[in-house]
This record gives sequence, C-alpha cells and structure tokens, in this order.
Amino acid sequence: MGQAPEQEHPKNAFGWAARDTSGVLSPFHFSRRATGEKDVTFKVTHCGICHSDLHLIKNEWGNAIYPIVPGHEIVGVVTEVGSKVSKFKVGDKVGVGCMVGSCRSCDSCAIDLENYCPKVIMTYASKYHDGTITYGGYSDTMVADEHFVVRIPEGAPLDATAPLLCAGITVYSPLRFYGLDKPGMHVGVVGLGGLGHVAVKFAKAMGVKVTVISTSPSKKSEAVERLGADSFLVSRDQDEMQAAMGTMDGIIDTVSAVHPLMPLIGLLKSQGKLVLLGAPEKPLELPAFPLLTGE
Amino acid sequence: MGQAPEQEHPKNAFGWAARDTSGVLSPFHFSRRATGEKDVTFKVTHCGICHSDLHLIKNEWGNAIYPIVPGHEIVGVVTEVGSKVSKFKVGDKVGVGCMVGSCRSCDSCAIDLENYCPKVIMTYASKYHDGTITYGGYSDTMVADEHFVVRIPEGAPLDATAPLLCAGITVYSPLRFYGLDKPGMHVGVVGLGGLGHVAVKFAKAMGVKVTVISTSPSKKSEAVERLGADSFLVSRDQDEMQAAMGTMDGIIDTVSAVHPLMPLIGLLKSQGKLVLLGAPEKPLELPAFPLLTGE
Repeated sequence: MGQAPEQEHPKNAFGWAARDTSGVLSPFHFSRRATGEKDVTFKVTHCGICHSDLHLIKNEWGNAIYPIVPGHEIVGVVTEVGSKVSKFKVGDKVGVGCMVGSCRSCDSCAIDLENYCPKVIMTYASKYHDGTITYGGYSDTMVADEHFVVRIPEGAPLDATAPLLCAGITVYSPLRFYGLDKPGMHVGVVGLGGLGHVAVKFAKAMGVKVTVISTSPSKKSEAVERLGADSFLVSRDQDEMQAAMGTMDGIIDTVSAVHPLMPLIGLLKSQGKLVLLGAPEKPLELPAFPLLTGE
Repeated sequence: MGQAPEQEHPKNAFGWAARDTSGVLSPFHFSRRATGEKDVTFKVTHCGICHSDLHLIKNEWGNAIYPIVPGHEIVGVVTEVGSKVSKFKVGDKVGVGCMVGSCRSCDSCAIDLENYCPKVIMTYASKYHDGTITYGGYSDTMVADEHFVVRIPEGAPLDATAPLLCAGITVYSPLRFYGLDKPGMHVGVVGLGGLGHVAVKFAKAMGVKVTVISTSPSKKSEAVERLGADSFLVSRDQDEMQAAMGTMDGIIDTVSAVHPLMPLIGLLKSQGKLVLLGAPEKPLELPAFPLLTGE
C-alpha cells in the first residue's frame, strides 16, 4: 500500500527482521491488521526456527523482499476473534503454519490442499489479499483467517508443539499419504535433524519399525536410546547397508545437502517409497539404469 | 555344464548370436532342452527387436556373456507340451517376454511380480535352473515353463503382437499401476518410439486424453493423425509448454537419453505421476528446490 510497516495497519506489533542477506535479525516495529470478522488474533508465545527461515532471510532461494520477519511454526493464545469466527474463542491455544491464505475456490483448495493452490499466501514475505506484505511469527502478535489457524489440544505444551506446525506436518503427511503408517511396516529415516527426529517419533507412535540412517555413527545413541528407533544404519558402512537391502517399505529422507540416492533405493522393498523432503540447492542425481537394477 | 552350445541339450536349434561388442549378429547353432513336464515348446514365428537387445549385445550394461542370442518379444505356435502342462496345447499361439524363470517362493513371486524376484531368470544371457545359459527369441524354436508363457488370443496377428511382450507391457503396466487408465484423465507421452507409440494406443483405448510430447515437430502428424493422440507439444516451445502447465494426471516418459525433467514435472497436476521408463546410461538430474516449486 506504499505506507511504512509501522503505519499500514492499526495495531502496533514488534518482531525481529532480516534487512539484508547477512542472516542477522534486528528489532523491527511494524503493524498488524485489525481483527477482521473471520480473523483470529493471538499473542505469540513460541515460534520454531526452521531451516527454510534461514534460506529465506539469506535470500538463498532468490525471492526475498526485505525486511523479512520469519517464523512459520507459530503458537500462542487467542486474544481476540472476529464476529464470524466459529472455531475459536479468546484464551484458546492455537497455531499457524506456513500459510495464511489461498484462493479458496480452486481444485486444490476444494480438497483441503491449499498448499498446492497457485495463489497460496505464505505466512511471511508474501503479498496478502489487501496488498500488504505478510510478517511471520518472530513477533509478539499474530492475526490470521481462522481457516488457516489450527487448534492446539489442552495438555500439549506450547513450546514442544511449535515445531509440529512445519517440521511435524512435513514428516507426518508423507507417512500418512504413502500409507507408511501401518504397524509392522519398516520405515527408514535419513538424517536426524529437525525433521528426522520428529519423523522417528511419529513413525514409532504409528507402530512402525524405524531405522535411522545417518553418516554419523555418533547419532546412534540419540536415535535408539533417546528417540526409540529400532535400529541404526551408518550409510557409509557397506556391510550394514548391504544387510538391510530390500527391507524397507519406505524412506523419509530429510537431508537437504546433495547426497547419493542409489544406496537408499537399494534399501527399499519392491514398490517401496522414497520420499525426498530436503530442499537441496543443487540437483540430485537419479541413478543410471545398470546401477538402478543392480545388473 | 561346460559343454558346447550345440551339445548341452538334446534338441537342435538355430539362431542369430552376438559374439562380441560389435553389434553384429551371425548364424549360431545351439540346442534347446527336451520338453519338460511343465514346459511348452513352440516354433518361433516372430520376435521383436527391443532397444535393450542392442544395449546387451554391445555390452553397454556391462553384463554380457557371449555368445548372446537376443530377443525377448517372442511369439509362435506350440509344437509340444509337457505331461503336466495345463494351460496350453499343440497349435496354440503363445508368447514369451523378458523372463523364463524365478524362485516361485519369495514375496514377489507370491503376488505374481516375478519380475522383482531376486532370482529372476531372464530370457537370454541368464543362467537357467539347470546351469545352462538361456538363449532368446532370435531363433527358430523356444522352450519355457508354462508359468512364463502367455496365451495370444485368436484374432491377434502374431507380427503385431510380438512387441507387446516387452514394449507393450512396459507402458501398459504403469498406466494401470498408477491409475492413469480412467476415462477423462489426461496423460502425456514423452517420445514416440517403440514404447511411446504403444503407450498412445493403450491410453487412447482406455479412454484417456493423450498428449504426445516430443522435441521433433515433425512427429506431430504421426502422433495425432496416425496414432490418434489428442494433442502434441513441442518440448522446446516455451509457450506451448507454459500453456499446458498443471494439466496432466500422469506422464509416461519413454526417452532413454539424458533429458531435463523439470519441464515435465511442471506439466503435472498436484500429485501427478511422472513415470520414467527410459534407461539412460548417465544419471538424470532431479531439479533443485527453487526450480521445483517455481519459487
């Protein structure tokens, strides 16, 4: 709208913003819109830090518009609701993930896959319906249409819940979508960072046998003793990898660096699923044919 | 068994064999086993020429054992059946595809996916149960366990049927397996060679809308007028490709040369299927993240 961030909306807000590619965040005074009739306004109590926040504030994906207030794993407590809000009331614990708007009329929106809407509006660094730029959860308050607000159950601690809004759904969704959620199945989890450790916990909760695959033998105790994985494979150990060939129904690969896919494909049963969640900056290679078949 | 090919089995056979990586085939006298109790012996009337035959005889996949009698799109007429054969009788029209044996007891064999059996025996250049090397269909006779013999319906011309034993099933199977066989769906076929033209015909017969995607504008008339494709895209034409973005339920990619995948992924609807059937000698690249999402 051409106005300064402090003035374009009626409600004062404070957050931490990146102003350039340095990766440094600094205090930022901006504003949030008044609570619209379908809006939920909440006090932000916690916000996760996602790797994609780091990519974005450093403009590593080439689409940054500064200043950027990052944060899309946002949780808090409702302070105000609009007159037509039906799902939430003041005092509820709520969260907002990576998106705050979409067209609500396309094929994807019609089946609750707003994330595939061509007009999806991201939680920050996107243009909202009113033409203003969205600001994320590294801030004191948040306002969003109730359609993009999720309820956090009583009893779920807010601090531990925040990362589920992105890291959590990112691993939960493929486990469900590809049917890797059945007791007795065997799923590999590659990488034990922000996504990987949540994948282990979800898969175990689903009754799935979980093997963590990592380049670092030092992660074994965390994987097995702390997170409850059933086994651990060092991806550089040819003997271990060979022994596990053809045993997995699926693999959740959370590694964002470029890495070889062939050894992972070898771990799968026929028609197993390899789900790539990492977002490498360089292309990954699909193995050529003789390698793929092992001929 | 250490014996010469002419002597290791009781029945004389004649075919065409590669003796080295030159790609040249020359006359070859060898032998076939006597008809076992579960075997079907047939006179070969036709045999397709598959690109993989060429790869194999030139040892481009590194696993050749010479002499090689290629050919795995084999059709003919039954001349003898074993005492326990139940599915075929003398005079039947039959075919044999890429495999002639498997363990018959593993998980894959149990669900009729013998092609995934770790002990699958290929139609040629493989070691059979008796220890002898298998020879393919560029020959006058064939013998195979009835489990690996398919019936060719009366009325199907043998010459046109032969390529279905490999090229045909290779495109038919993913259309069915990925559910790309429903009337009203839209499927792209990349490449209009041996596999591609059969894919167009199967998909059309299933009631699917078919778009052929090719680098060669000169293939348009063959695709649309001769094979019945609904439309044709020149993959190098940015405007045509842009207009078709997000319109396809699936793509059957039959190109075996290294080629960019990103433009094809862009043609798919959300959760569309890209099926890679080509067997490139060099790895294909999976696009990096910002390209993949179009961000």
